[in-house]
Amino acid sequence: MRILAVDTSGPFAGAALMEDGVVTHEIAACHGLTHSQTSLPMVEQALEAAGLAPADIDLFAAVTGPGSFTGVRIGVCEVKGLAHACGKKVVGVDALEALAVNAFGFPGVVCPILDARRSQVYCAAFRFSGGSLPARLLPDEALPLAEFLARLPQDERCLFLGDGLKVHFPAVRAALGERAVTAPAPAAYLRASAACFIAQQRAGEAVDAMALEPAYLRAPQAERERSARLAQAGGE
Amino acid sequence: MRILAVDTSGPFAGAALMEDGVVTHEIAACHGLTHSQTSLPMVEQALEAAGLAPADIDLFAAVTGPGSFTGVRIGVCEVKGLAHACGKKVVGVDALEALAVNAFGFPGVVCPILDARRSQVYCAAFRFSGGSLPARLLPDEALPLAEFLARLPQDERCLFLGDGLKVHFPAVRAALGERAVTAPAPAAYLRASAACFIAQQRAGEAVDAMALEPAYLRAPQAERERSARLAQAGGE
Repeated sequence: MRILAVDTSGPFAGAALMEDGVVTHEIAACHGLTHSQTSLPMVEQALEAAGLAPADIDLFAAVTGPGSFTGVRIGVCEVKGLAHACGKKVVGVDALEALAVNAFGFPGVVCPILDARRSQVYCAAFRFSGGSLPARLLPDEALPLAEFLARLPQDERCLFLGDGLKVHFPAVRAALGERAVTAPAPAAYLRASAACFIAQQRAGEAVDAMALEPAYLRAPQAERERSARLAQAGGE
Repeated sequence: MRILAVDTSGPFAGAALMEDGVVTHEIAACHGLTHSQTSLPMVEQALEAAGLAPADIDLFAAVTGPGSFTGVRIGVCEVKGLAHACGKKVVGVDALEALAVNAFGFPGVVCPILDARRSQVYCAAFRFSGGSLPARLLPDEALPLAEFLARLPQDERCLFLGDGLKVHFPAVRAALGERAVTAPAPAAYLRASAACFIAQQRAGEAVDAMALEPAYLRAPQAERERSARLAQAGGE
């Protein structure tokens, strides 16, 4: 089975190709360029190097968030288009679970955190307990960091990874001390190959391209502003 | 500090760029194409996407083996050329150590094995014990699999990764039973970003481009054949 995965949910744009359970092509780039300009060429590059056309892909995967609203839309819509054109199904991959896959060997709690702005993090917690995929301890949420940390088990080592570390690691360290550790640089970012891996494990949950939806966790800013305006107008 | 790493030592060709400790570009491809055709374009692609020229790189890294003799030569010579032209230093990265970096959280023995043909594996053993890099338990060697397995600690879980698994995992499982586990697909192959990470940690050991040497572990086949011919001639 050939799986093609796309991620544009965060600072990286990535694409990966998996054939019969083996990653055969992976590309990831984080240069502040627009994902809408870089993502599809990455897909084309992976396919071309493999001597494949989109129609040769059996299953598509897109990281559906949480993450940058605009970023998530780009990858999700691109994969919807590819899969719809080829009549193939799609697996939506959770960004936090994909990040957790990087820490597959860690014998404690795996805590992916993404910068959600507005003094919040997108966060979840996982544990590797024998299965191929990490077992979930806490659901995806947008929370103030302190609230997330309070929900974590209080006596275990916790591995943090994701772009939320850049802003929040000092606060994590202050709260958890030596219990808090981080992933080395190659495992610190979301990889499209992890999305391939999750899609492979969850191939049975694939949906039609039409049914794939972003998972924002919060309403997009434009909708929040509209709701606030309507609430204000209603109160006047 | 900007580090550019190249790996062509195995079935994958890879290149990665790290800026101030953060991976900003990574590409890996395994399509049976000739590394001599794919490697330099990958480097150019990473630099171009980052808006950089070779002269902007502060430190180069090349995976020096063990691995395919021809493959190792390609990457090592390419990086020697780049570094020499730019007057920058080079870190030679051990392929087995770079593979071990993928398993950074594993609480047991990390065992990278590469197919060395002639009924041998290139192998080593590591353990993560607090440092950024894995601590070495066994040196790089070319050994029959059974001999390598006999040298491993006898009462711990052992994580195997690397292209040697394809041929040898059934034998590993037969010998070690449930103690033997494997890495998930995204962590199963050597990544150039791991070479960046090792080069960053070992920047103090960088050498002049002229001094970078492949680490074959065994004499190349042509030399072995020549030695055998000479020995035979001497014995006649």
